[in-house]
Amino acid sequence: MSIKIGILTASDRASAGVYEDISGKAVIDLLRDYLTSEWNSVYRVVPDDQQRLETELKNMIDQAGCCLVITTGGTGPAPRDVTPEATEAVCHKMLPGFGELMRSVSLQYVPTAILSRQTAGIRGKSLIVNLPGKPKSIKECLEAVFPAIPYCIDLIEGPYLECNPDFIKVFRPKR
Amino acid sequence: MSIKIGILTASDRASAGVYEDISGKAVIDLLRDYLTSEWNSVYRVVPDDQQRLETELKNMIDQAGCCLVITTGGTGPAPRDVTPEATEAVCHKMLPGFGELMRSVSLQYVPTAILSRQTAGIRGKSLIVNLPGKPKSIKECLEAVFPAIPYCIDLIEGPYLECNPDFIKVFRPKR
Amino acid sequence: MSIKIGILTASDRASAGVYEDISGKAVIDLLRDYLTSEWNSVYRVVPDDQQRLETELKNMIDQAGCCLVITTGGTGPAPRDVTPEATEAVCHKMLPGFGELMRSVSLQYVPTAILSRQTAGIRGKSLIVNLPGKPKSIKECLEAVFPAIPYCIDLIEGPYLECNPDFIKVFRPKR
Repeated sequence: MSIKIGILTASDRASAGVYEDISGKAVIDLLRDYLTSEWNSVYRVVPDDQQRLETELKNMIDQAGCCLVITTGGTGPAPRDVTPEATEAVCHKMLPGFGELMRSVSLQYVPTAILSRQTAGIRGKSLIVNLPGKPKSIKECLEAVFPAIPYCIDLIEGPYLECNPDFIKVFRPKR
Repeated sequence: MSIKIGILTASDRASAGVYEDISGKAVIDLLRDYLTSEWNSVYRVVPDDQQRLETELKNMIDQAGCCLVITTGGTGPAPRDVTPEATEAVCHKMLPGFGELMRSVSLQYVPTAILSRQTAGIRGKSLIVNLPGKPKSIKECLEAVFPAIPYCIDLIEGPYLECNPDFIKVFRPKR
Repeated sequence: MSIKIGILTASDRASAGVYEDISGKAVIDLLRDYLTSEWNSVYRVVPDDQQRLETELKNMIDQAGCCLVITTGGTGPAPRDVTPEATEAVCHKMLPGFGELMRSVSLQYVPTAILSRQTAGIRGKSLIVNLPGKPKSIKECLEAVFPAIPYCIDLIEGPYLECNPDFIKVFRPKR
């Protein structure tokens, strides 16, 4: 069974073709560095619409079998930012520590980090993690939380992710 | 269109005239230092009653047109402390990063900072921020989160707040 | 009126007798060090079942009269981890600062601290605090949040807890 990871960009403009989606591609590039396990991406760019985001998250997990879905964009306070709402709506369990850590890391760079509402949660045997939309912030945030992701996926009975210690130091406590 | 900012003190005793409301006045004094834009305050002192607080928050935003409402008091664990509940009830979107940062700043002074439940959220095109009730903590907390407030109000399509860099360094990322 | 404190271990295996509950006992040992007030423990070990946990939390508070209930275990992302859900279901008021501080303390040791979902809340005149399941993490987390617990119990009109400053420095602000 191959490992599938969803990358979901929430952006009105990128989904309308106004500009290229560099955020989702930045996530894919980071995951290529981090993971040595073979994996396939399920990649979608959708507008900032809660219903569309929920449908896509459910498809990626329930139909495509992604053990991990990483979203980018739509986490701010603007009226169209609804990615955390969509995430919470499809998750069975929330993991507030992801958002707390990402905000505290981003706060080292910009005081507006407190405006980010990103979160993470579990749907069935899959983990959903929200990242911000800006490529620079994507790297800062994913680097901060990724060390805990493979063990989280172990705990929810997903596939065993092998990683490249030259790029990311993941941690699995001895049980 | 003039800028209006609501200052809402939640206090059974101050609203009953048992003592003077120094907390709300401390917030107004800080805002006078921070803001160079012309602005008017809408100032109310109400008892720690969730219904009254919700009504006042809605009036300040929907009727008086405040782009920002800052509350003080009612954020602790005591039975009468209900300001965060009233805030959440009238908001369309919560911003957990405000409470996280204020608690982590207050923790540098007192270990009881973890008892504060203050939060922030968006109602329509307005931002509501809870501050604690003690004047010393008010300053610590408002100083910590204010740098992100003008940009937040930009994002929710409110008025452009100009600030005095001698008192507060606000941050607006280049878009 | 004697002081009663509930210690509730959530563990499928410990409750089935597969192994001894060392987590709940570690909590009791720490409280014996911390508290100089006379107190009695109400100690239970139950499986990771949300209904059972809710019933036990309610019994400890509403029937046995515990002013404080400390849980251990069941705070992770695994399907059977439901202690935070049970806690939230029986509380009238949540205190997010406890979970934030515990996760930030645990992060100094392990990056997987962000997977912990522990929280705290108020039911009537009683405080419920979730701790993780591992004895080492129990000590780190309880040491971090305990300094605020006696004052929290004062505020919710519980008994006055006296503590041993050789073991823990509690803090009560002057009112």
